[in-house]
Amino acid sequence: MKNFKLTIEYDGKAYHGWQVQKKERTIQGEIQKALELMTRQKIVLNASGRTDAGVHALAQTANFRCDTKLTPENFQKALNSLLDDDIVILDCKQVPETFHARFDAKGKTYKYRILNRSLPSAIDRKLWYIRSPLNIENMNRAAGYIIGTHDFKAFEGTGSPREHTTRTVTKAKFLKLGQGFIEFYIRGNGFLRYMVRNIVGTLVDVGLGKITPDDFQQVLMSKDRKKAGITAPAQGLFLVCVEYENF
Amino acid sequence: MKNFKLTIEYDGKAYHGWQVQKKERTIQGEIQKALELMTRQKIVLNASGRTDAGVHALAQTANFRCDTKLTPENFQKALNSLLDDDIVILDCKQVPETFHARFDAKGKTYKYRILNRSLPSAIDRKLWYIRSPLNIENMNRAAGYIIGTHDFKAFEGTGSPREHTTRTVTKAKFLKLGQGFIEFYIRGNGFLRYMVRNIVGTLVDVGLGKITPDDFQQVLMSKDRKKAGITAPAQGLFLVCVEYENF
Repeated sequence: MKNFKLTIEYDGKAYHGWQVQKKERTIQGEIQKALELMTRQKIVLNASGRTDAGVHALAQTANFRCDTKLTPENFQKALNSLLDDDIVILDCKQVPETFHARFDAKGKTYKYRILNRSLPSAIDRKLWYIRSPLNIENMNRAAGYIIGTHDFKAFEGTGSPREHTTRTVTKAKFLKLGQGFIEFYIRGNGFLRYMVRNIVGTLVDVGLGKITPDDFQQVLMSKDRKKAGITAPAQGLFLVCVEYENF
Repeated sequence: MKNFKLTIEYDGKAYHGWQVQKKERTIQGEIQKALELMTRQKIVLNASGRTDAGVHALAQTANFRCDTKLTPENFQKALNSLLDDDIVILDCKQVPETFHARFDAKGKTYKYRILNRSLPSAIDRKLWYIRSPLNIENMNRAAGYIIGTHDFKAFEGTGSPREHTTRTVTKAKFLKLGQGFIEFYIRGNGFLRYMVRNIVGTLVDVGLGKITPDDFQQVLMSKDRKKAGITAPAQGLFLVCVEYENF
């Protein structure tokens, strides 16, 4: 059995997230379908993690095993010609048979895009449009509190509990790009479901002055989802990259 | 009768162009419908010019006349709340009753976006993806030939002849933005239907080495549409701005 690692860029807008579903179009479903067409084998594609409906990826990673004479280049070219324009296979390479895109992932980076000005953009809508002025300095002060190892239970999506809710975050910072465009970068060893969007939603409450940076720290320490803010909309979230030790 | 000038940004993807049609959704149709809802009057919205299906605008201009107590601010706010997110009214102001968005326009700038690299982008698809390497220097050499006053009949869309096909172009230049992104800016006193897209299609033939910059000049001078290249796809074209003397 050969094992292949894919690096995938996608626009999540037209998909019901990563994970395969019976009726709805998903990223995993579309790629698996194309791989099964090529190999005439049942294929299971393991991602570094699911992305939810509407979330984008600049470089999602996934692996699949199969018995084939096809080369990584064959797979990449054929997938890119079979898949719609909103999914692009950036890379395909053969990896050791033990490699697993999720279990071997050491870190992940997400970005969240916000547009903060008096008028929205008609053309760039992969972001959260917020009209009221945000205090980015306070948002960065609050974001500083999540750096380190914490129990992120307060920011976990309801209805999808994990046994361990402790994660390590090594970067959490807003950057102003000009013309009201703001990007939040967050890097960690793993993320709970909705964790990034719940953190962003609560940091926006800080930016709007609804809560202080110290209140934000209290939310984190409370481990109580009901204390956190809203879940930021999916269309602003991008999985930027997944880190591995060797591959 | 008051006369109002709108500045409009739109993503053309979901629309059958600017001009109102009986069945299809168009930019003009959507805005007129909203204005008629607000004013309970029949409204005619004159644009600086039509944009074709799938073409975008960063700052299209249009004017409409009506009898109303509503202020420009009222119109802007109400339109932005009534219209879908892919149309944004950037500005509304009252102008002299004689102002006409098309007849008073002195100049227009378009940009055309190209992505030229080995892999397309899944996320940014408001452009023409071209895999084969383009020689931008030769494309700019050829583009230089259209600067000045010329008969642009060779680049006019078939089936939409104008009496006068002479136009003055004051800027025509490709810029490399990095990572394979290229933008072509063209500014002139007016444009024939499909003129920008036909010019870009023919300049791409220069970039691919199918024809030389001198051949391009021959196409221009031939005034023969059959000599020009293909029409570049709509999704890469943006109306950047419209110039007026006073308004």
